Amino acid sequence: MAGNDKKKVAIVGATGYTGIELTRLLKGHSKVEIATVTSDSEKGRRMSEVFGTFGMENDPVFVERDTELLKEADVVFFATPNGVAMQKAPALVDKGIKVVDLSADFRIRDVAAWEKWYGMKHEHPDYIEKAVYGLCEMNKDKIKTATLIANPGCYPTCVGLALLPLLEKNLIKEETVVADCKSGVSGAGRKARVSHLFCEVADSMSAYGVAGHRHLPEIRQTISNFNGNVAKKFIFTPHLIPMIRGMMATIYFQSSEPIEKLREVMEAKYTDNPLVEVTKPGVYPDTASVRASNRARIAIEKAPDMDDTYILVSVIDNLVKGAAGQAIQNMNLMMGWDEYESIDIPATWP
Amino acid sequence: MAGNDKKKVAIVGATGYTGIELTRLLKGHSKVEIATVTSDSEKGRRMSEVFGTFGMENDPVFVERDTELLKEADVVFFATPNGVAMQKAPALVDKGIKVVDLSADFRIRDVAAWEKWYGMKHEHPDYIEKAVYGLCEMNKDKIKTATLIANPGCYPTCVGLALLPLLEKNLIKEETVVADCKSGVSGAGRKARVSHLFCEVADSMSAYGVAGHRHLPEIRQTISNFNGNVAKKFIFTPHLIPMIRGMMATIYFQSSEPIEKLREVMEAKYTDNPLVEVTKPGVYPDTASVRASNRARIAIEKAPDMDDTYILVSVIDNLVKGAAGQAIQNMNLMMGWDEYESIDIPATWP
Amino acid sequence: MAGNDKKKVAIVGATGYTGIELTRLLKGHSKVEIATVTSDSEKGRRMSEVFGTFGMENDPVFVERDTELLKEADVVFFATPNGVAMQKAPALVDKGIKVVDLSADFRIRDVAAWEKWYGMKHEHPDYIEKAVYGLCEMNKDKIKTATLIANPGCYPTCVGLALLPLLEKNLIKEETVVADCKSGVSGAGRKARVSHLFCEVADSMSAYGVAGHRHLPEIRQTISNFNGNVAKKFIFTPHLIPMIRGMMATIYFQSSEPIEKLREVMEAKYTDNPLVEVTKPGVYPDTASVRASNRARIAIEKAPDMDDTYILVSVIDNLVKGAAGQAIQNMNLMMGWDEYESIDIPATWP
Amino acid sequence: MAGNDKKKVAIVGATGYTGIELTRLLKGHSKVEIATVTSDSEKGRRMSEVFGTFGMENDPVFVERDTELLKEADVVFFATPNGVAMQKAPALVDKGIKVVDLSADFRIRDVAAWEKWYGMKHEHPDYIEKAVYGLCEMNKDKIKTATLIANPGCYPTCVGLALLPLLEKNLIKEETVVADCKSGVSGAGRKARVSHLFCEVADSMSAYGVAGHRHLPEIRQTISNFNGNVAKKFIFTPHLIPMIRGMMATIYFQSSEPIEKLREVMEAKYTDNPLVEVTKPGVYPDTASVRASNRARIAIEKAPDMDDTYILVSVIDNLVKGAAGQAIQNMNLMMGWDEYESIDIPATWP
Repeated sequence: MAGNDKKKVAIVGATGYTGIELTRLLKGHSKVEIATVTSDSEKGRRMSEVFGTFGMENDPVFVERDTELLKEADVVFFATPNGVAMQKAPALVDKGIKVVDLSADFRIRDVAAWEKWYGMKHEHPDYIEKAVYGLCEMNKDKIKTATLIANPGCYPTCVGLALLPLLEKNLIKEETVVADCKSGVSGAGRKARVSHLFCEVADSMSAYGVAGHRHLPEIRQTISNFNGNVAKKFIFTPHLIPMIRGMMATIYFQSSEPIEKLREVMEAKYTDNPLVEVTKPGVYPDTASVRASNRARIAIEKAPDMDDTYILVSVIDNLVKGAAGQAIQNMNLMMGWDEYESIDIPATWP
Repeated sequence: MAGNDKKKVAIVGATGYTGIELTRLLKGHSKVEIATVTSDSEKGRRMSEVFGTFGMENDPVFVERDTELLKEADVVFFATPNGVAMQKAPALVDKGIKVVDLSADFRIRDVAAWEKWYGMKHEHPDYIEKAVYGLCEMNKDKIKTATLIANPGCYPTCVGLALLPLLEKNLIKEETVVADCKSGVSGAGRKARVSHLFCEVADSMSAYGVAGHRHLPEIRQTISNFNGNVAKKFIFTPHLIPMIRGMMATIYFQSSEPIEKLREVMEAKYTDNPLVEVTKPGVYPDTASVRASNRARIAIEKAPDMDDTYILVSVIDNLVKGAAGQAIQNMNLMMGWDEYESIDIPATWP
Repeated sequence: MAGNDKKKVAIVGATGYTGIELTRLLKGHSKVEIATVTSDSEKGRRMSEVFGTFGMENDPVFVERDTELLKEADVVFFATPNGVAMQKAPALVDKGIKVVDLSADFRIRDVAAWEKWYGMKHEHPDYIEKAVYGLCEMNKDKIKTATLIANPGCYPTCVGLALLPLLEKNLIKEETVVADCKSGVSGAGRKARVSHLFCEVADSMSAYGVAGHRHLPEIRQTISNFNGNVAKKFIFTPHLIPMIRGMMATIYFQSSEPIEKLREVMEAKYTDNPLVEVTKPGVYPDTASVRASNRARIAIEKAPDMDDTYILVSVIDNLVKGAAGQAIQNMNLMMGWDEYESIDIPATWP
Repeated sequence: MAGNDKKKVAIVGATGYTGIELTRLLKGHSKVEIATVTSDSEKGRRMSEVFGTFGMENDPVFVERDTELLKEADVVFFATPNGVAMQKAPALVDKGIKVVDLSADFRIRDVAAWEKWYGMKHEHPDYIEKAVYGLCEMNKDKIKTATLIANPGCYPTCVGLALLPLLEKNLIKEETVVADCKSGVSGAGRKARVSHLFCEVADSMSAYGVAGHRHLPEIRQTISNFNGNVAKKFIFTPHLIPMIRGMMATIYFQSSEPIEKLREVMEAKYTDNPLVEVTKPGVYPDTASVRASNRARIAIEKAPDMDDTYILVSVIDNLVKGAAGQAIQNMNLMMGWDEYESIDIPATWP
């Protein structure tokens, strides 16, 4: 495809970890050019000046967030703090520009719940309904015709991929479902804070948000698409792990079906999906095995000596399938391209 | 106390991580001298030659494991692979020498279960009954009069400390109890293995033993001291975390009591214990806050939007309270000394 | 290019860190297919069974090292311990098969020196002369017509790239040149050893090979291509750093030229090279900025308050430009393809 | 010693990494009580509320920096940013209170140089002369009678300990001396900055201050006590290493003496010092071997194939011998106590 046939992509908020990850992955995409990147703090500097991680050729110059250039894009990614996309995206959507919002602004259908958890008033609640929740493995058909995508959170993706096959077949009992989740530190974003300094988190780990976390209503919403009673019994505890990237959900649930049946359903769901793997019996994936890739790997196991209790172990890279990679997957689906263009890459290992 | 009044301590297997940790902590103990250290591989070398972590003065020379010197000790610690202490300890115990076994040889009262999980025949099952299980906060009185201590495993200690107050008051419902546990890599010991090379585990994490782990029967045994039905509903999944030391148990259980009651019981249990802290509401301890110390910190929280589901977050240093520190605490109790001599030290932070 | 037009590549020793990295990078190469991978220990298993880092489709099955399939390859990479390629490569070279040896077997022209440093007799010294030393930025023209490439060591690449521009112009004084070098742990390979366990190297660093290291004669050989007296005054100390990948050389040398001249020469050398960057004044590259990429970044600075002393800071990824990436670059040059095919990728950051 | 016989210690700035480390080490000191700790940000909270790393008993409450309580102390430690102690210490010194300043305010005798490097006017230059530079192994006698100690920087301590024996005997040629230095991240302090977030520095390393660093004039001042010409030829490059604690200096120098002579001089200097070890030939210390201890370990080696070039490898813990530990050593010397009270502890390893 000649350069001038390429579609123009804009990344709003391109200096955060998800923004820079979008850029890394889109560099290998044959159908797009990164036309616009915004950063108020780095305005006027070339991307390769700010980040030594790219080569020096043809890299874009950061412009301010309020640039008119967004209107010339074919696809706009918002990799911004919560509250920005809800202001900026509607005008773009109205012009027919495809928008993928990596923040939480359009994820929660219950506006009051969103406003409670995110601590601000939603300025465009009408666009929440227009948005399609971009968990590709759940909403593929809707995504294909969407203009506005609410890209899922990292925990909701990691948990959702593991539970989806079983929810679709209604195989989970209406008993407590526990998702004990672990995330690398990049999930906390790129903000100056003592609590995320190297010396505070290296060689240590912690739980947080035990009494409640923003991703809880998001996951419950996904579950409630299938079974509202299971959603109500769902709890989740996030943990901060001393690794840069990587996310694991260890999920405990009950089912009256035997392990063979559950495994069969899991495998069937993902048999044609090259980027989601149900691991062989006895293989529990480590997060490094999906590092910097868009892949997910999920193990299922019976709890020892229990009749009806099962354990899922699901891993993704929080910045890729948990953010930038899934955002590109959503773009590919919306644009009618190969779903996995630029994101079907092996993990960076070791 | 003059040097020649000090009690003689022997450490069998002093080149593993728990052995070296015993040495570090005992160096600050006013009532003992480290008389004998064994290592078949380092036999004949001074400890300071092998480990640059100590100074050069008066440090002992490694002798072979089968040394007669053990019989001259007042206290012998076995920091050996499973299967060694069951052979060597009985003769020492028969002579009245106090023995603390940091391996699993005398922990499990059900010999058949032990033999199944540890893959060997027990050579001295009669000594299992003589052994006292050295979870100090559970068995303090028995420990004081014991000659042979089965020092608990790290996971059983971390989980046990959190559950004990509630089990004692029978406040845990006979429903599924999940302990999602995380350990630093030192828990895997000091053996040459590809799977624990830096490049295999750094910047990554994994679950293991999902279908069953040796510490499961040990924890269930502790629980069954109080409630056999809860023990049967207990499951646990260990995870490997890229940190040198540190262990966390995130425990999910149900209770019909309100959070205030549970917190009150937790605090009452440990109010006089300077090394176990029930954290203030909203404070979830990180593992670094107990690094290299014998302390445990435990948080209790209500699961969000649930009536009867609670979360405990318990942290210890797996090498200290989870091994060498508790071993010394057991020695102190057996010898009638200050329970916390040489182990009441702040965490090494950062 | 249709699949059956693709050139067949074989990787001998595909389960080490450089072997797996070759596979990762070659997966994105449009002109080759990975036809054969060898591993005596994993023989018969599919690559995706052994390494969860790839997807499940069309991945090769490991065969034994002595396979006849090597003779059907167009290009064979040896990612084997030293001493293997010297036995196996000559027969392939004789058949006209292109060989890139990532081990040290054909790097050192002084056979006696090689035998001393590598502790074995060289079985095919006659092929050392036939081999081209594959430091692409030094020997590009020779590489294009070569059949056998001695792929450089990681330290020699990192140091060589920094010194080359200055050596070519003879701008380095015949005084002591110090290269203080630092490497991530993957440079030590994937062998079961206590010394490279996570707990031994994490949160720590060390010097090694201070009295002499195998890469010293290799670097001196490179320098002596330009100035034998400088080569004699060259010393280097490697250090082990607690990171998975990444290498830095901090080089101290003297020159009678001003900094402006030295900088100009550095920039001129690499101005057309998209993968080697001379950083702007005051910018000192971190190793993460080249992580998992084939890029090198080099800073030059005047030592404070000194008239004639300069400091170079050079970073590469030891597994990419320091091994697998440069090996592919060499293949691309030998085959007459775009030099940067499949290796012109941004760093994985963070 | 009864509690009320203990000397009162105050720590100004007790929430930074060196302040908290002072507290950790002083907890084990038999002759002092921590009477006062200051922190403007944590004023009114108990130390154990802010830092979970201590137990709950008898820990002090933070008071504001300008507290009158400092005047009631016997010893005051300033663990404050540069510029604080120069304002506050003189009044205390005038009252005869012993002061150890861990910042740089009184280290540099050349006031103009200090003002240039530290970017502020010195408010009490007259006290610089009164201060004794607290490199204990250089100035022990002066320290014993001092009232005001300028506690050395971490790099100057690490480099100084290695060079001192050779400088004292004038064994270093007046040629370029290179100190390539590496530090753990805690050396950067506890300030909210993007550049020291976990994701920015983990699994990576970087050089900084290549064109000049504040510790350069401090080290040159130490060297110039012995030989001004060597001081002028001294250069040093600091590097940031992804570890919490630990510091290494790899030093390259020339001497006309043989290695045996140099080693003999090194060993003689430290033969009676239990906390400084000259390692056996061929043993190069890793930083973990001194982790959380006040020890230093130094190796000396001949550069390969060179007649007159030598390499020193010196390691300390930057927060202990490089800051808090040496500060306590200085206090012990000033107070006439055992020099190593509370700081003669083994390394925390692993």
